[in-house]
Amino acid sequence: MNNNSHKFKIKDLKISVFKSGIKKNKTDLLLISLPKNSSVAGVFTKSSTSSAAVNFCKKNIKNKRKNIRTILVNSGNANTFTGNKGVKSVQSLLSYLANKMNCDEKEIYTASTGVIGEFLDPNVIINEIEKNNPYSVDCWNEAAKAIMTTDTFQKVAFDSCIINNQKVNLIGIAKGSGMIAPNMATMLSFIFTDANISSEVLQKILENETEKSFNSITVDSDTSTSDTVLLTSTNSVKTDKIIDVYNKNIKEFKTILSKLMINLAKQIVIDGEGAKKIIHIKVLNAISKNSAKKIGMSIANSPLVKTAIAGEDANWGRIIMAIGKTYEKINLQKIKIYFEDELVTSNGMKHKNYSEKKVTKFLQKSEVNIKVDMGMGSKSWSVYTCDLTENYIKINADYRS
Amino acid sequence: MNNNSHKFKIKDLKISVFKSGIKKNKTDLLLISLPKNSSVAGVFTKSSTSSAAVNFCKKNIKNKRKNIRTILVNSGNANTFTGNKGVKSVQSLLSYLANKMNCDEKEIYTASTGVIGEFLDPNVIINEIEKNNPYSVDCWNEAAKAIMTTDTFQKVAFDSCIINNQKVNLIGIAKGSGMIAPNMATMLSFIFTDANISSEVLQKILENETEKSFNSITVDSDTSTSDTVLLTSTNSVKTDKIIDVYNKNIKEFKTILSKLMINLAKQIVIDGEGAKKIIHIKVLNAISKNSAKKIGMSIANSPLVKTAIAGEDANWGRIIMAIGKTYEKINLQKIKIYFEDELVTSNGMKHKNYSEKKVTKFLQKSEVNIKVDMGMGSKSWSVYTCDLTENYIKINADYRS
Repeated sequence: MNNNSHKFKIKDLKISVFKSGIKKNKTDLLLISLPKNSSVAGVFTKSSTSSAAVNFCKKNIKNKRKNIRTILVNSGNANTFTGNKGVKSVQSLLSYLANKMNCDEKEIYTASTGVIGEFLDPNVIINEIEKNNPYSVDCWNEAAKAIMTTDTFQKVAFDSCIINNQKVNLIGIAKGSGMIAPNMATMLSFIFTDANISSEVLQKILENETEKSFNSITVDSDTSTSDTVLLTSTNSVKTDKIIDVYNKNIKEFKTILSKLMINLAKQIVIDGEGAKKIIHIKVLNAISKNSAKKIGMSIANSPLVKTAIAGEDANWGRIIMAIGKTYEKINLQKIKIYFEDELVTSNGMKHKNYSEKKVTKFLQKSEVNIKVDMGMGSKSWSVYTCDLTENYIKINADYRS
Repeated sequence: MNNNSHKFKIKDLKISVFKSGIKKNKTDLLLISLPKNSSVAGVFTKSSTSSAAVNFCKKNIKNKRKNIRTILVNSGNANTFTGNKGVKSVQSLLSYLANKMNCDEKEIYTASTGVIGEFLDPNVIINEIEKNNPYSVDCWNEAAKAIMTTDTFQKVAFDSCIINNQKVNLIGIAKGSGMIAPNMATMLSFIFTDANISSEVLQKILENETEKSFNSITVDSDTSTSDTVLLTSTNSVKTDKIIDVYNKNIKEFKTILSKLMINLAKQIVIDGEGAKKIIHIKVLNAISKNSAKKIGMSIANSPLVKTAIAGEDANWGRIIMAIGKTYEKINLQKIKIYFEDELVTSNGMKHKNYSEKKVTKFLQKSEVNIKVDMGMGSKSWSVYTCDLTENYIKINADYRS
């Protein structure tokens, strides 16, 4: 799928990538230029130690700035907890780019990802952009590569659909591998479309879909200070502008966007630090969506569940433990745990026909599917995580070296 | 300290241990007999999938049963999520022991720890006790060994103090190594004294001290279904019975008990699965004790902080991340992070005189001391955890084999 992404174009949207030197010998800078009157929506980390870049972006969205012209992303340095110096660094970049890209500072969104606590020198970035020609590539794979940190592959997804008889395109890139337990948004993801949709409508759709995708994954229960998801539209497909989120003409668009975001979110989990397996946990028949998600995330965040799956050990009792530690109201007798379609528990204990052999076989696959039927109501939620292996430790014990 | 524990006796309290076969070739059963009118206090896991044994004990404490005569603990099987069969198993043990120990069923407390979801056959235990002589050992080390699962050493602590001019003794044992993020109580710990104190007073003291000790440690953020802490007294030291928790004669007793419980809690952390280092995180000058504890536990539970410490990498930015993900109200400018007495941050960024070399040296020690001064108020809290190493994964990937 990634291989064809170069065919996927959003008209008038220009991409360039740079090697500024923040990361050694790797592209570490992504600059995207959008045409005038492009729409924008954004969701960001809820962390109270969020980065300077996140704080600038948040303010624009909060103040309902409707347009976006420029996105600048650097990897290798999060510019987080760098005091006033860090804030001034972002301010310098905004001033420079407003001039360079011929737009208002409020139409620029920046994001930084990497080590926390190290000052980001804006001149390194400015000098690199001055030295080299922007708009030098037109390839989504390159764009996705430029924003990677511990990621082992670039994350791209694209699709298209019809609005008012016109074809509209959707393409998204994402990065993320560790420090993944997003809340409100996750890591970095930038999604682009040419559909003629207002920023207000995009914002509502984005918040809704983020819950089901980036906010339903976890690698290690740690929440980044830099989480940023932007959804933008060049509005270049000439239909009547969509200004109502309930407009039935964008029903397919919402479905396609939802799929695309879940696709990107799953790519992040597959690339989870040290991960060998992706784990899909579906909680069914819970009393509320909130309860289903809480139970799902508790299982997905449990290091004991994740190490058992890494060891392909059918230690399903740990799922019971993870349900219990949510302190949600439950009925033990009604909980049904399945691995694929194999029923493991019933009547508050191991199911009488339980076959450990079958479950072990399912655990040997690279995608592990767990279903937990709470038998309490009718709401369900899916979450995605990965197994926890010795390589997670190896990667993170000396991340900076 | 453990080596002298055999000298420590609580009059009329009898210990025996057995090899029932639940664990292979290891003692797996602890039976303790207390004299008539012994006082009891207990705190238990808040998990909504708590074990059958926990549920029986909880009921006794809730119903204000004042006396205890017998404690039975088995390791190797948690008898959790075993349905009505599991409940009946505990019931059988209570009936048998009431007869055997000549006491009321409500004076018996049982605890089970080990694999979740496997049925515990009461006859294996009953047959073993019938076959072998109870009261066969009188050694606290042996008692502590009999309740171990993945623990690598037995956990014993003891002390004494004066109440009304009489010497009273305190001795405690504990087990725990993984699935440690207690809430309300932790894993198994049994503490004994001969001080003449009512059950009501013991209960109040125990709840208070558990918050500061067992509820302030974490190995892996997973909460056990079997957590049980019992504090009992034979009341054999002949002073006037203490019936008021504010009685100033037990001030020293409370201090000593507090120390003993923190000692046991720290032993659990030191023995954390795969751990090489104990980490003491003290949060100072927070707006409330609750806030200080929440921030401390967020740092202590962060796999990224714990792997960085395992790798002796001074990646302090991850502490900032862990503070941020609590969503507590903070003032970035005021946060001061110290490793030992080395100041790392000030004015919302890396401190100007920060020496990574010094911090790396502190990280090479087996005890890592981190202080986080929030500069927001006057409340503090200490939490204890361990580093996260590749051995944690090894131990847990095939726990059952």
